Amino acid sequence: MSGTNSERELIAEGPAIILVEPQLGENIGMVARAMANFGLVELRLVNPRDGWPNEKARSAASKADHVIDGTKVYDTLEEAISDLNFVYATTARERYGFKPVRSPVFAAATLREKFKAGEKTGILFGRERWGLNNEEVALADEIVTFPVNPAFASLNIAQAVLLMSYDWMKSGMDDLEETRFQPIEQNPSTKEQVLGMFEHIEEALDARGYFHPPEKKPKMIDNLRAVLSRRAFSEQEISVFRGVIRSLDRFPRKWPEKIVPRQKKASDSGETEGNDSGE
Amino acid sequence: MSGTNSERELIAEGPAIILVEPQLGENIGMVARAMANFGLVELRLVNPRDGWPNEKARSAASKADHVIDGTKVYDTLEEAISDLNFVYATTARERYGFKPVRSPVFAAATLREKFKAGEKTGILFGRERWGLNNEEVALADEIVTFPVNPAFASLNIAQAVLLMSYDWMKSGMDDLEETRFQPIEQNPSTKEQVLGMFEHIEEALDARGYFHPPEKKPKMIDNLRAVLSRRAFSEQEISVFRGVIRSLDRFPRKWPEKIVPRQKKASDSGETEGNDSGE
Repeated sequence: MSGTNSERELIAEGPAIILVEPQLGENIGMVARAMANFGLVELRLVNPRDGWPNEKARSAASKADHVIDGTKVYDTLEEAISDLNFVYATTARERYGFKPVRSPVFAAATLREKFKAGEKTGILFGRERWGLNNEEVALADEIVTFPVNPAFASLNIAQAVLLMSYDWMKSGMDDLEETRFQPIEQNPSTKEQVLGMFEHIEEALDARGYFHPPEKKPKMIDNLRAVLSRRAFSEQEISVFRGVIRSLDRFPRKWPEKIVPRQKKASDSGETEGNDSGE
Repeated sequence: MSGTNSERELIAEGPAIILVEPQLGENIGMVARAMANFGLVELRLVNPRDGWPNEKARSAASKADHVIDGTKVYDTLEEAISDLNFVYATTARERYGFKPVRSPVFAAATLREKFKAGEKTGILFGRERWGLNNEEVALADEIVTFPVNPAFASLNIAQAVLLMSYDWMKSGMDDLEETRFQPIEQNPSTKEQVLGMFEHIEEALDARGYFHPPEKKPKMIDNLRAVLSRRAFSEQEISVFRGVIRSLDRFPRKWPEKIVPRQKKASDSGETEGNDSGE
């Protein structure tokens, strides 16, 4: 899905993402892309198998070049985290230990607080095949693990970074129901506009013998109005709806054999403006 | 990251994921895997470019075979959604229209409510290159869009499914801070245990001339106890910590030249049991 607006300011802040001994350049690239999607920029690699720079990583990053270009490489995990104040280790496996285990939502909120307080933070992700070893987890302050289907818990490294980055971005939003764009702004309709629409359609229907038998007309109008007013129409929607009625009303249809129109107006044969009040 | 427990019940419920004209088998497979991670199972494909079944999809699904095996293929989107009650369309591009635009958190909550009410729901995802067209979006009830970095908004199809599936799973959790496993359960320590530890380390330090000059000893003990009690130790942590002290206390070190021990105990030369009360 596209939708990138390159004129918008690039968000570039937050925790460092630290990949320990990543193997495939494609995965490193997908990690960079996931980071860029959610405004992270600082990628650190500990002893990447295929060295660095890595053209496959750049290609898989889908133009997250600012992340790839800024990536730093370290020989050991200790060096990679030496300047950080607080570090999470991600793991899907239960670990035998004392370290607090957090959900991504909790971890993201903690990272956001520390970010606001000026602390430098990082999140460790392990190797493709077997994650982080216990000595590496021991270097972190706390553990973060994802709420997954227990019978199908395996996330790849880029997916894990994507989810953590997503929760990081959400932790900075005041309103989780906020969206980047909204439907066309619409004005609530007034009752006058709604009644104008009702009269418009009822007149058009009446002209075609819809209200049959005549003694049921009041009840049929009640039902019709109930159906049409279930949603609160906006002004724009009323305008669209009345356009539909006007169009249907333009030429008379053949009468069903048994229903004889009670009245036939001049405007039924040819173009009519209908009842346009309120439009 | 592994961590799958195949003895645990497989979660298999929730909205159908509908891919419109997906191109690469690898992407379909990654979608199946992401669905399985978060307990979704119903995958529908509209006119997949390379046909179905697709071995590349199965391979990329990393054993999400239950999703791959149950995948259904349709000629048109209309057929693919005909049995559903409510459908979301995902898009990253702003659309010109009246349809409500929702965040994934809002959409997941809506889908969860409808699921509990017994309604059948689905989420549409578009082609790799250009997503859904306007006619396809028009078939959905509402739009869902992801909160992404506006300057880097492009998510691939498997990432978009992963995020939506993740929010679906979270919408079913009572506590977003819940995690699948927890650290070893620990008992809070009592003050007697904490004081026993303080006395243990202070005795060992005192034996080595740490409290120098002697008139500063009370202040030094205050500081030491402040450092050691900043965290609320658990019983287990006290046990570990006293093991460390006991080990350090086992053999005397060489005295620094200028510091002469004020007292030298028999236990300093050779193995000592230290002050073990409370262990």
